[in-house]
Amino acid sequence: MNICLNGTGTDMRAVWSSGGKVRMIDQRRLPHDIVVVEFKDHNEVAEAIRNMTIRGAPSIGAAAAYGMYLASMNKFDIMKAAETLKASRPTANDLFYAVDHMIAELNNGADPLIAADSYSDSIVEKCSKIGEFGSSLIADGNKIMTHCNAGALATVDIGTALAPIRKAHEQGKKIFVYVSETRPRLQGMLTAWELLQEGIPHSLMTDNASGHFMRKGVDIIITGADRIAANGDTANKIGTYEKAVIAKELKIPFYIAAPVSTFDLDTKNGDDIVIEMRSEEEITMIGDMRVAPAGVHAVNPSFDVTPSGYITGFITERGILRPDEIHKMRN
Amino acid sequence: MNICLNGTGTDMRAVWSSGGKVRMIDQRRLPHDIVVVEFKDHNEVAEAIRNMTIRGAPSIGAAAAYGMYLASMNKFDIMKAAETLKASRPTANDLFYAVDHMIAELNNGADPLIAADSYSDSIVEKCSKIGEFGSSLIADGNKIMTHCNAGALATVDIGTALAPIRKAHEQGKKIFVYVSETRPRLQGMLTAWELLQEGIPHSLMTDNASGHFMRKGVDIIITGADRIAANGDTANKIGTYEKAVIAKELKIPFYIAAPVSTFDLDTKNGDDIVIEMRSEEEITMIGDMRVAPAGVHAVNPSFDVTPSGYITGFITERGILRPDEIHKMRN
Repeated sequence: MNICLNGTGTDMRAVWSSGGKVRMIDQRRLPHDIVVVEFKDHNEVAEAIRNMTIRGAPSIGAAAAYGMYLASMNKFDIMKAAETLKASRPTANDLFYAVDHMIAELNNGADPLIAADSYSDSIVEKCSKIGEFGSSLIADGNKIMTHCNAGALATVDIGTALAPIRKAHEQGKKIFVYVSETRPRLQGMLTAWELLQEGIPHSLMTDNASGHFMRKGVDIIITGADRIAANGDTANKIGTYEKAVIAKELKIPFYIAAPVSTFDLDTKNGDDIVIEMRSEEEITMIGDMRVAPAGVHAVNPSFDVTPSGYITGFITERGILRPDEIHKMRN
Repeated sequence: MNICLNGTGTDMRAVWSSGGKVRMIDQRRLPHDIVVVEFKDHNEVAEAIRNMTIRGAPSIGAAAAYGMYLASMNKFDIMKAAETLKASRPTANDLFYAVDHMIAELNNGADPLIAADSYSDSIVEKCSKIGEFGSSLIADGNKIMTHCNAGALATVDIGTALAPIRKAHEQGKKIFVYVSETRPRLQGMLTAWELLQEGIPHSLMTDNASGHFMRKGVDIIITGADRIAANGDTANKIGTYEKAVIAKELKIPFYIAAPVSTFDLDTKNGDDIVIEMRSEEEITMIGDMRVAPAGVHAVNPSFDVTPSGYITGFITERGILRPDEIHKMRN
């Protein structure tokens, strides 16, 4: 199998459709095994989103669009399918955005597969533009830090946070990327895997070491986002808030890279964003191995909210915006 | 086996001597298996410190004192044994303090076992005083956060950071403890294990979630330390710096609990503290399972330095000091 999630858009994506089925790389098996799984109805797609076979807000959006395609093809009630898909995970705005987009397309008589494919293609195009705009923030010799995986796997292809990094590398800038492992699900391993394949110099580190290396010298931090409120408060993978506070203290620019579909202008601020609480087992077990003492209680919020005051700017397909410029998106 | 590392000092300690051997609980096997390992010479003790069979600055100090006892009993050159033990790990001040203390005692003709036992006993007494002083900072109903394991296992018995928590619980204060899992070695599991045994309410969380819960409401943070410079800059487990910066931002008091043996008044500030870099495998492997992609590079600093400006105070066996009061210890 020839895997090349490298932004060329040629070989494989995080999610796609062929032969009447929806296919995904099973991200739970990466980076050790590259396994493609296939789904025949929207319920299976909803379960794949829930169990994190696919993850990352834009990829979740694309998966949901393909779920709507399957529901339509299977002559299932579109509004019920939409409800099931929207209930799969609570935080990522792209999920709701994609499902509503598909409802509108289907109501307008669009071909379901063409609509889902073009939604997915549009994410990749947006990521490419995010890469163009964001690379202007990265100078030759920069040390960059990122968190979680906001690469090709999370965004169908190319990435959000990784797009400017990929583009800067393509432009011949000598860069170095600090990758936080991102407990509990260790999605930093996926980011390291993507960077390895592209030959972009990087080091993996524990989440605990982020502050240490920021103090030693990081030029810019770029992460993705799951939902951005109208005032710029941003929900992203747990641990993002910590990095943003330390970045402000050390005067390191802190950017969020996300397509417009991640912005939720109907949510006034971060207090209104639902934070998904996931199972204790994501902390107490690693793989099949129990790491916590028997009987211990663990709390596992999957996201945190970074208040907009800690965010330097948002890298979108429409350009780079300050938090106080988000309202312009309504136009 | 009746294990009760609960501050009563009765049943078992992290390290002790009997029958001409030095015995330790193998902390690498906890919390799943309680295994006692024994050592017959100082080289084995040095290796046990290096491979983290025993860990935590005060416990490392006690282990080294017992290592000096074995060297003396085995008629080994005391100064060479001291050199070997001091080379086992670079950051914890207690290691150097304990070895120098034993050299002085042995040169004064002290009985080696009595000298080592009383060094170890003195740590437990100091922890008890730290508990008394520190508990005055904890009010009924407080939410407390700690990092790594600065409990009985790390300090022969009782703990440094856990001593005020234990004491507050004994005093009948209703408290709740947030325990960060502390990657890469997951020593937070040891803290959870100790708290479970004492019935102190707590939750385990990922290191990434610390900031999230601090924002939701934490009243005080208490950690241990490995070395404290003359100006109050403090080396402690990687991740401590992050918590201290966020605590200052959120106006949460941030305390370091440590005996005087952890203070290194000859080190002017944190820039002069050697930070141990440990193996990549602590990040890329969890147990026997590889979690990182093949070929990835990881960086693994074991400690970070928290500048004194982020530290509210130091809880010692002599009372609670502000960073600008450390110089008083010379007297």
